[in-house]
Amino acid sequence: MLGYPRSLASVRDLQSQNIHKIIEQAFCFKKSGFTHVREAVVLLAFFEPSTRTRTSFEMAAHRLGMKPVAFAADHSTSLKKGESLHETLANLLAMKPDLLVCRHGGDVRVAEILRTCEVAWVNAGDGQGEHPTQALLDAMTIIERLDQIEGQRIVYVGDVLHSRVARSGVLLFEMLGAEVAVAAPVEWVPKDGAWAKCKRFASLAEASEWATVCIGLRIQKERHADNKSVPVQDYRLDRRNLARLSSNALIMHPGPFVAGEDLDEEILSDPRCAIHDQVTNGVYVRAAIMAEMVGKA
Amino acid sequence: MLGYPRSLASVRDLQSQNIHKIIEQAFCFKKSGFTHVREAVVLLAFFEPSTRTRTSFEMAAHRLGMKPVAFAADHSTSLKKGESLHETLANLLAMKPDLLVCRHGGDVRVAEILRTCEVAWVNAGDGQGEHPTQALLDAMTIIERLDQIEGQRIVYVGDVLHSRVARSGVLLFEMLGAEVAVAAPVEWVPKDGAWAKCKRFASLAEASEWATVCIGLRIQKERHADNKSVPVQDYRLDRRNLARLSSNALIMHPGPFVAGEDLDEEILSDPRCAIHDQVTNGVYVRAAIMAEMVGKA
Amino acid sequence: MLGYPRSLASVRDLQSQNIHKIIEQAFCFKKSGFTHVREAVVLLAFFEPSTRTRTSFEMAAHRLGMKPVAFAADHSTSLKKGESLHETLANLLAMKPDLLVCRHGGDVRVAEILRTCEVAWVNAGDGQGEHPTQALLDAMTIIERLDQIEGQRIVYVGDVLHSRVARSGVLLFEMLGAEVAVAAPVEWVPKDGAWAKCKRFASLAEASEWATVCIGLRIQKERHADNKSVPVQDYRLDRRNLARLSSNALIMHPGPFVAGEDLDEEILSDPRCAIHDQVTNGVYVRAAIMAEMVGKA
Repeated sequence: MLGYPRSLASVRDLQSQNIHKIIEQAFCFKKSGFTHVREAVVLLAFFEPSTRTRTSFEMAAHRLGMKPVAFAADHSTSLKKGESLHETLANLLAMKPDLLVCRHGGDVRVAEILRTCEVAWVNAGDGQGEHPTQALLDAMTIIERLDQIEGQRIVYVGDVLHSRVARSGVLLFEMLGAEVAVAAPVEWVPKDGAWAKCKRFASLAEASEWATVCIGLRIQKERHADNKSVPVQDYRLDRRNLARLSSNALIMHPGPFVAGEDLDEEILSDPRCAIHDQVTNGVYVRAAIMAEMVGKA
Repeated sequence: MLGYPRSLASVRDLQSQNIHKIIEQAFCFKKSGFTHVREAVVLLAFFEPSTRTRTSFEMAAHRLGMKPVAFAADHSTSLKKGESLHETLANLLAMKPDLLVCRHGGDVRVAEILRTCEVAWVNAGDGQGEHPTQALLDAMTIIERLDQIEGQRIVYVGDVLHSRVARSGVLLFEMLGAEVAVAAPVEWVPKDGAWAKCKRFASLAEASEWATVCIGLRIQKERHADNKSVPVQDYRLDRRNLARLSSNALIMHPGPFVAGEDLDEEILSDPRCAIHDQVTNGVYVRAAIMAEMVGKA
Repeated sequence: MLGYPRSLASVRDLQSQNIHKIIEQAFCFKKSGFTHVREAVVLLAFFEPSTRTRTSFEMAAHRLGMKPVAFAADHSTSLKKGESLHETLANLLAMKPDLLVCRHGGDVRVAEILRTCEVAWVNAGDGQGEHPTQALLDAMTIIERLDQIEGQRIVYVGDVLHSRVARSGVLLFEMLGAEVAVAAPVEWVPKDGAWAKCKRFASLAEASEWATVCIGLRIQKERHADNKSVPVQDYRLDRRNLARLSSNALIMHPGPFVAGEDLDEEILSDPRCAIHDQVTNGVYVRAAIMAEMVGKA
């Protein structure tokens, strides 16, 4: 594949023809079943805890006949004994896995090691940076349900500021010809370049008249000092806020959601809701990425 | 296999010919070695912690060439972030494992998802409900040592009230023609229908004259308000209480036991003790169940 | 292999020709790639927490096509429910893994079970006892960089007293014809027989004039009552203390290290530093050991 990166740190590492090739491969796995690639060892190094994403990568690895080895920083005794995070990563890389899947909280020295390492690696979330595989599975889900990304009007709702999911999404969707907007209070609208061209809506109700895709986001309380002033009910995926959403539109959320807070559970049975499809497609997309990066090495 | 269930939630899902077929297959694995079935991904979702049972299923899966993926709720960050237990399960199911092995504490909405889910699944313990694979491995152990279940006099000893092991056992053993009794203080005798026909003994010493199989149980202190009034020493597997047990009888315990409390460690070297055989047979029985449920799909 | 032990509890279980055969096999894996042995299930029972060693064994197992199953005592619910450590181990052994890799804190009854068990097993660290696979990977690294062990002058630096790494090392290196010394304050010099013949240096600076290999050690604070009187800066791997070390010498550390305490991070970029080579070689050595112990069974 021309220009296919050895590492997937950011959506910016991909070109639009690569994105389409990954998603095509993912659809192919979904329709015709998985095929084995070589017996690679995939190290899942999660320095920030995760369950959904780690399990998704682990299942995808097994489906390809690869061998996942999970490393969770929260159980690391080396870290408890005083080893630095970047040295733990350097050690794991010294064990020579064929592929590294890494999540971390944004540690500068961890990022530096990843930038220069010889092992192929995939970013599974880096603090408030990016989460490119989530953007890819979201793209696959939109294509599956609405045929194409081009021309869609996609709105990220709620706590956009702290969301690496949304940052990877806006980069990817604009590259593929969609228009992206934000429905969030001013405090939660990111100021960086990725969002410069984006329309802003003051509430989900207002955005839902415009959007063909609404993507809710969990309120990342752990990153907030104080939310008292934010009218969170205006950004919740619920029947009232989505009353004017087109019947052909999509309702999405990267999960985990907090029922009653960023999503009302009745939304899950709305025919426009694709939240569980996203989870299903995550395994196919991650398998497609890993097959491409490791299969031919 | 006629009437073999797609899911094993309860011993009631099995017919006696299915039970015998599973146990025969388990003996066959024990005698002639394991055989590979297709490369299924088995998701081990343990919403209540476990080590013995999870490790047993994990080893059984590997023996069949299956790929176990473990999910432990105690490490789940989605749950910590406010996701509900049943939504976590819905997500794991959306990843499309070939088989789900699930332990949970009895959560009503988790049970509801399991009841209607499309993925084949095995109950690895559901609160104070059932634990059917334990009953099956106990049956295998009795057959191995005493040739048959039919006609045995089996007594559950001690904290029967809180024991899902005992509930699955009484259903299974009566289906196979054994007589089941309880040796427990009145407070620990279950009142539900499964136990209606059962004889009761006031102490293990009394029961051990009658029984051909004594099955001890851990006192589930975490489920008791207060045990002060219960004479626990009357229900301990020890030399004194088992003095009148026949030399052909069996001593069993599902584990984990608390030495000195529900079992005296010297019992482990009694030739009638089959406690470690139960653990060994657990791997064979679980493999037999998984091979049957997934192998032919 | 003549005299090859079924279990690797101590370096003393090995003869020098076995040691060389293991290391040769490890070099062969490194040069020509891994080869599959039979589909063994390897149980990794870590009753003392570990990340580096467990991950290294897990990757080595996968490279051979074996199936690792990890059991970590810190998550064990059986232990929380009151099961004794040795009974947990007896249970895991009853599940009949093909190989056990075990780390424990030195529990006498655990050691007793291991001494008599029928399952082949490898010691992955036993309290302040031994850590034979670490000594073997250190030997491989020295041979790789300095051609041979024979004739080397190897110094263990710092907290030698509490180090199972150093105890396995001194036994192995003397068996292979090296001279071993200790650079440590009197309080940290072990008094047991293994160290009887060893030279002692009062500081690393002094030892580095003599040594061809300097092996630093983490200060095991968790095993110290009080370190206030020890001049730790005299035993740190740093530029000042290593100023007189030969340009052909090696700098090693089993990890994890605490930067600024037992090692200055700038040492990692010294061309004499082999710390990450040790980690890399660990996977090859452990694979060689497991292939030998299990592959031909």
